[in-house]
Amino acid sequence: MTTAYLDHIAATPLHPEALKAMMPYLQGVFGNPQSLHSAGQRAAAAVEEARGEVAALVGAGPEEIYFSSSGSEANNFAIKGLALANQAKGKHIVVSAVEHLSVLNSVKALEKSGFTSTLVPVDGAGLVDPRDVEKALRQDTILVSVMTANGEVGTVEPISEVGAICRAHGVLLHTDAVAAAGNIPLDVGELGVSALSLAGDQFYGPKGSAALFVKKGTRILPLIEGGVQENGRRAGTENVPGIVGLGKAASLASAEMDSRRAQLQPLRDRLLEELPRRVDHVVVTGHLMRRLPHHASFCVAFVEGEGMLLGLDLQGFAASSGSACTSKALKASHVLLAMGMDHALAQGSLVFSLIDGTGRPDIERLLDVFPPVVERLRKMSPLYTQFLKEKRQ
Amino acid sequence: MTTAYLDHIAATPLHPEALKAMMPYLQGVFGNPQSLHSAGQRAAAAVEEARGEVAALVGAGPEEIYFSSSGSEANNFAIKGLALANQAKGKHIVVSAVEHLSVLNSVKALEKSGFTSTLVPVDGAGLVDPRDVEKALRQDTILVSVMTANGEVGTVEPISEVGAICRAHGVLLHTDAVAAAGNIPLDVGELGVSALSLAGDQFYGPKGSAALFVKKGTRILPLIEGGVQENGRRAGTENVPGIVGLGKAASLASAEMDSRRAQLQPLRDRLLEELPRRVDHVVVTGHLMRRLPHHASFCVAFVEGEGMLLGLDLQGFAASSGSACTSKALKASHVLLAMGMDHALAQGSLVFSLIDGTGRPDIERLLDVFPPVVERLRKMSPLYTQFLKEKRQ
Repeated sequence: MTTAYLDHIAATPLHPEALKAMMPYLQGVFGNPQSLHSAGQRAAAAVEEARGEVAALVGAGPEEIYFSSSGSEANNFAIKGLALANQAKGKHIVVSAVEHLSVLNSVKALEKSGFTSTLVPVDGAGLVDPRDVEKALRQDTILVSVMTANGEVGTVEPISEVGAICRAHGVLLHTDAVAAAGNIPLDVGELGVSALSLAGDQFYGPKGSAALFVKKGTRILPLIEGGVQENGRRAGTENVPGIVGLGKAASLASAEMDSRRAQLQPLRDRLLEELPRRVDHVVVTGHLMRRLPHHASFCVAFVEGEGMLLGLDLQGFAASSGSACTSKALKASHVLLAMGMDHALAQGSLVFSLIDGTGRPDIERLLDVFPPVVERLRKMSPLYTQFLKEKRQ
Repeated sequence: MTTAYLDHIAATPLHPEALKAMMPYLQGVFGNPQSLHSAGQRAAAAVEEARGEVAALVGAGPEEIYFSSSGSEANNFAIKGLALANQAKGKHIVVSAVEHLSVLNSVKALEKSGFTSTLVPVDGAGLVDPRDVEKALRQDTILVSVMTANGEVGTVEPISEVGAICRAHGVLLHTDAVAAAGNIPLDVGELGVSALSLAGDQFYGPKGSAALFVKKGTRILPLIEGGVQENGRRAGTENVPGIVGLGKAASLASAEMDSRRAQLQPLRDRLLEELPRRVDHVVVTGHLMRRLPHHASFCVAFVEGEGMLLGLDLQGFAASSGSACTSKALKASHVLLAMGMDHALAQGSLVFSLIDGTGRPDIERLLDVFPPVVERLRKMSPLYTQFLKEKRQ
């Protein structure tokens, strides 16, 4: 049985064109881009070409792109680097309650050195209300961080509106666009952000490739200090093949974004509509309209995410129950809890995130095999037995 | 004309066997190692196999290896992470004056939050005297960092002796082994270190692959916070192909280290002996005996490193004038200045670092083409003209 991989949010496959672009830099062109000789300068030219491609994906200038090794590194760099570089103006940070842990834990780390933070709530669909961001601003607020889209529930946040508020108040805005970039159109100017994180493995680029956009003129301190790479803002020998692959994936995403959306969105909608019909006690999580085009997420009552994943895996489907970064933590997702989801129901979180090439037959087969998987798990659930008993009374 | 690449210290080529090992993870096996489905678990198994291979290279346990994206990241993680996690015991750090900038600048960053540091001097060969380390220790010293070998001058430091002193005083010892690991035998137990940084692109592994050894039971805070990867000590989706390539390069290095040394050391010695005979006013930098087997470094009077590099590049030789991380800074190397080198002479720094496959004909041709390169440059040097004039008088 061939596996249908429906776990885009954990990692996408590497686009064959991106791999092809990387191959010369995994073989003959192995120089260090900082070297003055021609072996180095060929690598440097490739890095600068990729910088332009990544910049173009989000409407930035090449000199505003800093390569990093993961979305998490980009988020740590943004939060810590912006906060520490601008702390003379104040030490208060505003973040949404549904941010990725690499944002939330960076804020926690800063709190050890005197920073304070305010968590902005979300509604039941995971949506931030820009007015809540405005209310959270204080005289000493220097930084706001609200993600572009949430990987666990697919909700796309109103960043432009938050950006306008931040600009009006003279506060920096960072957006974690790791789940969004390369999948929906983004323009840093329209969003009004000072910094934006993106990661290659969310749009068919290589693992270990990511970037932070930092608006020209914005003060930021490095997370990784040392040499002069990345204009002195991110030390360490450049991962040339990874950067080249990221650049190629970015230019492919720019070109193919519309056709990928056209392919995946109807399949996503089929799942969002039909899955709750086929199985009782299932709710869609996240926003129905403001949603990543490849993302369908649910909470299934009386089962746990892990059991569903393993049952689906046996049927040839790779899915997730939330962020891969916390898959082994076995705790209810802070995102779902922030959305007001019941703790028990949040345990049954399930995300199907489609990749380029996912077909209608995959989705139909999933809709067929999923109900028995849930049924088997529920038979073993004491909670479900109790529920049925109470229902009968 | 084929180019002879003699810039090992900037980056080695990727070993074809390492690339071969990586290919499945750049193609079919693209899961996120944190995912619970089988696509993820196949990636996770590969990461754990690589962890064992890297551990074996330095005599560590697999659970003591934390992957990172560069030697600079590993050094930042070590210095900041160890200092911040152990600051209750004291806030004083001891480092040698010839450390890489990723170590020195991490210490500088810590000084902004109340840490202080002592620089241990080196002798004219770049060697640290362990007694100087001991003298620098204070009641509040918590961390010492001395590199295993210096990439700019090739000197191999007496880490075991420094390790014994640190153990006797209950102080943590980190060693930046980026230039050494995979090239000379290292055992973390014999060295007596609590942490050791290494990087794949110094021993034929991929760029973007590196690791930090942290001795079991040692307290360290993460540099990149977020998810549960790397036992919660380094967040971010694992660069699976990079890690697999690092693991393969480590096991190749374990197997081939002796034969590589046997091949390169005589060529290195030929350069160290013959080059100063062929060109006047050339001194060898670094230690003649305690030296990386692939490393020959010099200072050439009355010329600048950059000119020599470009002249050599035109003759088909890739060399460096020191650390690639600072090649564009155009300042005299802090390493050479710490060794007591004259500022003007330090401008003429030149490093030939040999790679697997460098042959005797490469070295002989280099010895032939190098004198005219220097002669041409000196003809344009006002300092040299003045020197000749004074000599004649």
